[in-house]
Amino acid sequence: MPPPLPLPPDDLGLFTDLYELTMAQAFYQQGMLAPATFSLFIRNYPPDRGYFVSAGLEDVLDYLENLRFSPASLDYLRSTGIFTDDLLQYLSKLRFTGSVRAIPEGRLFFANEPVLEVTAPIIEAQLSETFIINQMNFQVLLASKAARCCWAAPGRVISDFATRRTHGVDAALKMARCGYIAGFQSTSNVLAAQRYGIPPAGTMAHSFITSFPSESEAFRAYAAAFPGRTVLLLDTYDTIEGAWRAVPVAKELEAAGRRLLAVRLDSGDFADLSRRVRRILDEAGLEYVQILASGGLDEFELESLVKGGAPIDIFGVGTKVGVSADAPYSDMADKLVVYDGRPVMKLSPGKVSPPGAKQVFRLRDESGKFLRDIIAREDERLPGGERLLEPVMAGGRRTGPQPTLDEMRSRFQQDFQQLDDHHKRLRNPPRYPVVASPSLERLTLQVQDQIASAEQE
Amino acid sequence: MPPPLPLPPDDLGLFTDLYELTMAQAFYQQGMLAPATFSLFIRNYPPDRGYFVSAGLEDVLDYLENLRFSPASLDYLRSTGIFTDDLLQYLSKLRFTGSVRAIPEGRLFFANEPVLEVTAPIIEAQLSETFIINQMNFQVLLASKAARCCWAAPGRVISDFATRRTHGVDAALKMARCGYIAGFQSTSNVLAAQRYGIPPAGTMAHSFITSFPSESEAFRAYAAAFPGRTVLLLDTYDTIEGAWRAVPVAKELEAAGRRLLAVRLDSGDFADLSRRVRRILDEAGLEYVQILASGGLDEFELESLVKGGAPIDIFGVGTKVGVSADAPYSDMADKLVVYDGRPVMKLSPGKVSPPGAKQVFRLRDESGKFLRDIIAREDERLPGGERLLEPVMAGGRRTGPQPTLDEMRSRFQQDFQQLDDHHKRLRNPPRYPVVASPSLERLTLQVQDQIASAEQE
Repeated sequence: MPPPLPLPPDDLGLFTDLYELTMAQAFYQQGMLAPATFSLFIRNYPPDRGYFVSAGLEDVLDYLENLRFSPASLDYLRSTGIFTDDLLQYLSKLRFTGSVRAIPEGRLFFANEPVLEVTAPIIEAQLSETFIINQMNFQVLLASKAARCCWAAPGRVISDFATRRTHGVDAALKMARCGYIAGFQSTSNVLAAQRYGIPPAGTMAHSFITSFPSESEAFRAYAAAFPGRTVLLLDTYDTIEGAWRAVPVAKELEAAGRRLLAVRLDSGDFADLSRRVRRILDEAGLEYVQILASGGLDEFELESLVKGGAPIDIFGVGTKVGVSADAPYSDMADKLVVYDGRPVMKLSPGKVSPPGAKQVFRLRDESGKFLRDIIAREDERLPGGERLLEPVMAGGRRTGPQPTLDEMRSRFQQDFQQLDDHHKRLRNPPRYPVVASPSLERLTLQVQDQIASAEQE
Repeated sequence: MPPPLPLPPDDLGLFTDLYELTMAQAFYQQGMLAPATFSLFIRNYPPDRGYFVSAGLEDVLDYLENLRFSPASLDYLRSTGIFTDDLLQYLSKLRFTGSVRAIPEGRLFFANEPVLEVTAPIIEAQLSETFIINQMNFQVLLASKAARCCWAAPGRVISDFATRRTHGVDAALKMARCGYIAGFQSTSNVLAAQRYGIPPAGTMAHSFITSFPSESEAFRAYAAAFPGRTVLLLDTYDTIEGAWRAVPVAKELEAAGRRLLAVRLDSGDFADLSRRVRRILDEAGLEYVQILASGGLDEFELESLVKGGAPIDIFGVGTKVGVSADAPYSDMADKLVVYDGRPVMKLSPGKVSPPGAKQVFRLRDESGKFLRDIIAREDERLPGGERLLEPVMAGGRRTGPQPTLDEMRSRFQQDFQQLDDHHKRLRNPPRYPVVASPSLERLTLQVQDQIASAEQE
């Protein structure tokens, strides 16, 4: 049964919810092949969130450029007995031919704002919905979590150590990517470092220490292997004793014309231990040796350590960041807003959202600070407003070159500087002002009326 | 920069933390190539958890059988300037040659019990640690979450609808897999259905309804496409009005010799709506039409609905289950317990665990019910105790055929029946008794003493 590796094939056509395909069957039978627009947004902020960082778009565009159904996939679909031969024939030739507009990765956006809109023949748009939400939802969550960590620890270096706690292979790679977009310096994941061009980072595990007869022997063996980049892990047996044992190793490195880079704390009370270890190092003349802390850290812990003045230079964040532990999901939705030129919407309780393709305009004060955003109809003009959704795909092809991760990282830094600090608070931030344009509000009322009258059957 | 698809290559050698490779360099330089044993366990229960379901082993074995470093990976490692040519040469030939013992997938295990032990030359064992934790940690969490859902809704059908909220592609596939092991009936993810042989399930989205001028037209179009398997989504505009509109469509299906399978609620107060919809259906002579509910459901909500007698036949679970929202991470650790025949351990505060390779023995009463587990040294004998860790890999190859997902599902059912119900409680379950054998306790004290004396340098 299972495949040889825990990874899906290049053919991602089947990576979709069954209902996308059953709806495709019904659309096909009805001859409904007209263009549809789907709008992707997050309705509500997860707890303590005041902004979102756009992330995941490049993966969506890669997917759309490669969307297809292999013969094996078509055989599987045939074997279910659910689909007609003519639909399978249609799927065998299906490629994504539509267009995409999106808020570029790294930019800030807010609740209810469309971050991505797809316009394509309805079957293509509907089929791709599952993958689009799957990628955008969690990458936005991870990038936003990482942004909160960087905000909490200004001037400190943060590295992604989350691979072992993320939910699988894809999540580990994307955590590294999203962390870097939002300001992390490096990742422990070597595959992510290779694929995304992120600096790799790493020290040693407790197993390295315990594999030697004594901690001192382990320290010396590591320093011998990496005289230029040694970081010693102190807490395998006792952090303070570990610090005392690190001192002679650092002195031996000095004697060889090298320098111990850092020591690492991985358990215990970091506020207290970092001060005690700093004192031991300083009194030994090792002021240049940095202190790295890792283990159970998130933005709340970082803020508390940094505000408390803990002498920690580098933070390795893992578990709680890699799963966005306090907000592991959002209510991101991908709604049909136009079919065949007709604006549409649903009215489910608590799930009403305006119809029609949209644009988000951002207004700033004279210094560039964000004032508010306006969600408008796509074809509106709003003098002085910056259009956030940009065309990124047309006719199933990217409209421009792929941005580098460093460009996304710069975009984030630029946007983040212009957002008022109180929206960045880690607890209960006030809502950034987002309103609908009068024209969009009128359209919403109009469509609600049309739905009511259509059902007077 | 980024690769064409959001998936890693077949070559997973680089899917590891950098420190696994820097430690490999140091081990290599020290000539430390002796066998090591690593032991994988979860130290503490996440909130409200009283048991764990073993999951992820087949992915680990696939990985170990395929572990290698491609020329491109070696080129990347060389480009970092961190590694010596002779280590890269060693890595170019590296294959996993070790052995694995594990608690089979689907079986229950408890905190502090080793669920998997790897014995291999230390570099091979160390390198594979990252992937092993990455897969086992989240698959155990997802399988355990799914088991809780099934327990909360006895006799009801549960389907995995989580793909859009899981953390990426790998997580979506594994959610489907873990759900099925723990008793779900189906998955919405078509790729997972194909790969794992799980029944696919799906209905229709709100976008299907809104793409038609009226809800009734949408219902009829779907029924025309799938006369034998129609499920109508009721809440796009108003659930009760939707139910009234479903009745004539069901009657038309009856007239054509077919039956409406089910209706689906996706928002609102399910306890109330399910009763009102049930009444509408029953009064129309549609007692056979089932009710499916989806949207924000987890084990707590399922328990409340089922205990309250809500007439819901099928539950689609997504968001909160797919990320194990109340427990998105565990503290699973993979500890070096033996190097070169010498039992080892670390003493970090709160992180002490016994040294040496281990076996877990399970004791039962005369009816087969679990009484308690005993963590012992691997070579101990414990008459009447069932050995939970089984050899699954030797010399880098599986020792037996791959079990099917249905076999894992049966194992889970068998174990789960034998666990006392109070450990299955959704809130604050009491701890299942797990103790260390006297011989393991003696070894632990011995090794602690050795560490203390080794450091009297």
